[in-house]
Amino acid sequence: MRTIEVCLTPELIHQHSLKGKTVVVVDVFRATSCIVTGLANEVEAIRPVGEVEETKELGKKGYLMAGERGGIKVPEFDMGNSPFEYQSEAVKGKKVAISTTNGSQAIIKSADADEIIIGSFLNLESVSSYLLQSKSNVVIHCAGWKGTPNLEDTLFAGALIDECAEEIDPTGDSALVAHQLYIGNHENLLGIAKQSSHAERLAGFGIEEDLEFCMKENEYQVVPKLVGEELISV
Amino acid sequence: MRTIEVCLTPELIHQHSLKGKTVVVVDVFRATSCIVTGLANEVEAIRPVGEVEETKELGKKGYLMAGERGGIKVPEFDMGNSPFEYQSEAVKGKKVAISTTNGSQAIIKSADADEIIIGSFLNLESVSSYLLQSKSNVVIHCAGWKGTPNLEDTLFAGALIDECAEEIDPTGDSALVAHQLYIGNHENLLGIAKQSSHAERLAGFGIEEDLEFCMKENEYQVVPKLVGEELISV
Repeated sequence: MRTIEVCLTPELIHQHSLKGKTVVVVDVFRATSCIVTGLANEVEAIRPVGEVEETKELGKKGYLMAGERGGIKVPEFDMGNSPFEYQSEAVKGKKVAISTTNGSQAIIKSADADEIIIGSFLNLESVSSYLLQSKSNVVIHCAGWKGTPNLEDTLFAGALIDECAEEIDPTGDSALVAHQLYIGNHENLLGIAKQSSHAERLAGFGIEEDLEFCMKENEYQVVPKLVGEELISV
Repeated sequence: MRTIEVCLTPELIHQHSLKGKTVVVVDVFRATSCIVTGLANEVEAIRPVGEVEETKELGKKGYLMAGERGGIKVPEFDMGNSPFEYQSEAVKGKKVAISTTNGSQAIIKSADADEIIIGSFLNLESVSSYLLQSKSNVVIHCAGWKGTPNLEDTLFAGALIDECAEEIDPTGDSALVAHQLYIGNHENLLGIAKQSSHAERLAGFGIEEDLEFCMKENEYQVVPKLVGEELISV
C-alpha cells in the first residue's frame, strides 16, 4: 500500500525523504489558498519566490508582484496575500510572482521531491483525486507559521489523509495526529480554525472574510503543479 | 492568565523561550514512565545522561546503569527501559543513571528552564496539581522519537492541558492540536496509543505489557523534579 506522511513544519522537512515522492504543500492562511484561487481564475502561472528583492526583479520582467511579510502586503507590490485579489479581472492571463512568510518557503524546501503540487481546502477533492490516480508515495508539507506547526495546515493534512485513507496508508505519528485532529473536528472546521493563532493574528488585520473563504471546501477544481519554476494548473 | 505551551519534539525547542518557566518533560514510551515508577518505588534519585559512556562512568561511582538505544537495553547496563524493572526490590534506595534514545535528550535540552519536572500518564494528576499550585508559565516538552513528533507524548500534552485548562491558557497551535487530539480520544487512550509508530516498534520486542502500563492514569503520586543533576521526588 502506498504511504502518506505529514511534515508539520518546514523545520522538520529534513526528517522526510522526498525523493521519488509527490509533495503537497499547504499554507491554508493564505498562500496556497491564493495560488489555487488564482489558477482557477485564469492566472497564467504563479512563481513562488523566497525574497522580496527577487520578486521585484521579476516585477521588472512583467510579473505582477504579490506577497506579504508578517501578514501585511509589501508596500511596493501589486497585490497582497488575499484570495479575493486573485479573483479580479486584472490578474487574468498574467503571471504572478508570490513571496510570503511561510508558503513560498515550504515550496522551495520541497525541491527534492519528484513533483510538487499545491493543496488547500478550496481544492481538497481535486488534490485527493490527483493523488489517488497517481502511483507515488506522498508527503504533505505544512507551511506552519515561522517554523512552528499550525492548526489549520495540520487540519488540512488530516482532511486529505481522510479523503485518501482507503488507498493510501497514513504513515508516521504526525499523520496519525493530523488525521485524528480532522476526525474530531470535521463538522466544525471553520470554528476550530478560528481558534488558531494565525486566525487571531489575521483577524487583527480585519480580514475575517479571507479566513472564512480559505476554509471553504472544494470551491475550485484545479491542481497547481510546479513545472520548472512556475506553478501551473494541471 | 498563565500560559501552557507544547513543544512537539526537541528539534523545535529553540522556538520556545524557557527562561522563568516550568518545563514538563514527557516520554511516555518509556523513559518518563520509568522515572515516575522508580521514584514512586523508593529509588533515591535518577540522573538523566546523554551518552552511554557517561552512564558507564557513573556506574563506577555506584549508580545502577539503565537505558536503551533503539528500544533495546544497552548490553553492559544493569537495567533496560521497562517500568517493571523500576518496581523491583533491587532498586530501592539506589541511585540510577538513565540514558535513553529520546527522554534523556529532552531533559538535557530543557536546561534553560526555571525548573524541570517529569510527566507521564502514571502521575498525570500529581503533575497537574503541582502546576496549578505554582505561579509559572509552562512548556510541555515532548521527547518524540528521534526528533519527530509522536502520538503518545502529544496525547499526554493534551491530557495535561485539559487538567489545567480552567486556570492555565493553552497557547500556540501545538497546544491546541494536542488538546484537540486528547478531547477526541480521551475515552480510548490505550487504543489510540497502540496505533502509534512507537507502539508498533515496541510491540515487535514483545513488550506490550509495558505499553499498557505506561498508559495507566494516576498510578503514582510523585512529581520528579530536577535538582542539580538528579531527579528526585518532590
